Amino acid sequence: MNQRIYIQTRGQGLHEFTAEVADRVRQSGIEEGLCTLFVQHTSASLLIQENADPSARRDLENWLNRLVAENDPLYTHTLEGADDMPAHIKSALTGTALTIPVIDRHLALGTWQGIFLWEHRRRGGRRSVVMLVR
Amino acid sequence: MNQRIYIQTRGQGLHEFTAEVADRVRQSGIEEGLCTLFVQHTSASLLIQENADPSARRDLENWLNRLVAENDPLYTHTLEGADDMPAHIKSALTGTALTIPVIDRHLALGTWQGIFLWEHRRRGGRRSVVMLVR
Amino acid sequence: MNQRIYIQTRGQGLHEFTAEVADRVRQSGIEEGLCTLFVQHTSASLLIQENADPSARRDLENWLNRLVAENDPLYTHTLEGADDMPAHIKSALTGTALTIPVIDRHLALGTWQGIFLWEHRRRGGRRSVVMLVR
Repeated sequence: MNQRIYIQTRGQGLHEFTAEVADRVRQSGIEEGLCTLFVQHTSASLLIQENADPSARRDLENWLNRLVAENDPLYTHTLEGADDMPAHIKSALTGTALTIPVIDRHLALGTWQGIFLWEHRRRGGRRSVVMLVR
Repeated sequence: MNQRIYIQTRGQGLHEFTAEVADRVRQSGIEEGLCTLFVQHTSASLLIQENADPSARRDLENWLNRLVAENDPLYTHTLEGADDMPAHIKSALTGTALTIPVIDRHLALGTWQGIFLWEHRRRGGRRSVVMLVR
Repeated sequence: MNQRIYIQTRGQGLHEFTAEVADRVRQSGIEEGLCTLFVQHTSASLLIQENADPSARRDLENWLNRLVAENDPLYTHTLEGADDMPAHIKSALTGTALTIPVIDRHLALGTWQGIFLWEHRRRGGRRSVVMLVR
């Protein structure tokens, strides 16, 4: 089955949507297979990360914001805003797709793993994620 | 179906081959599934990135070249050239495989997304990408 | 088929397990398909990298250890040890899953490509990798 998940973000940062993916996997009735998530943008990414302690996510965001700084004199692609070129670089470093095994109708995630959309634009937006289970 | 795509690169940088992948997906006749691309080298990578403005790609290349510099005194693996160890690191950071959903015989790419091989060696080469659609 | 691969690590670094994956692929009897590997932790990652020269792997480890330093004053998530937050960041940069095409019952790896678990915690641990071939 394939479906679309829309996620409305309101600013930069990690947005968890594990429960929504898990529900749809169960509803698909598929016993064993692959769940693929694919974000249709180049300024947001998908990530598996710790879902327990919010401080770990905050540190991760702050660390990447420092590594990929805004207003770097290296940038020439600046017309779309100071956060646009950093967003493309962050997307290249963290990735567009996730592949998660489905076993016995459940996502085979570890105890502390959650599924996150990482919004890299300051204003956020309505993000489209394609979900395919087979 | 599985096929091989060979890409001849002539130096470092992002080489788009979206149209070739899209054509082969259509020709496969597969309605719904996964298109997997896998580069068989450790000094080139595969990437989904913005395909509209070349300045975004140039900035991305320059940014990564600065982060993963040549002639870093940290390197001991230097026999294969000053660009070899940086190539392995860049490959580790940006990845070897892409997974793209196929829906209604089309790649489910967003409007601004293109598929790129990222050559990390200065001399380039004939790069082999395995393509599997199922 | 789906199986679990357990890897006991004794400290930080790249741990190759290509042969084990290749054997299981052959034993599965699957002619053509996808081999997916998924690590169920957020402080270890999976990587395709050069398997020939150990100096390349050592440089890669040292380079990433320098980029993602311990005891960075930026970190607030420090209760689980000085290596915990760097481990989460390294995992985000290098990834949780690998997808490798299977063709004629063999992994379609390039000549110099190996499959590695990258342990990011100093003490190591028993790492669980889900393997699915379809």
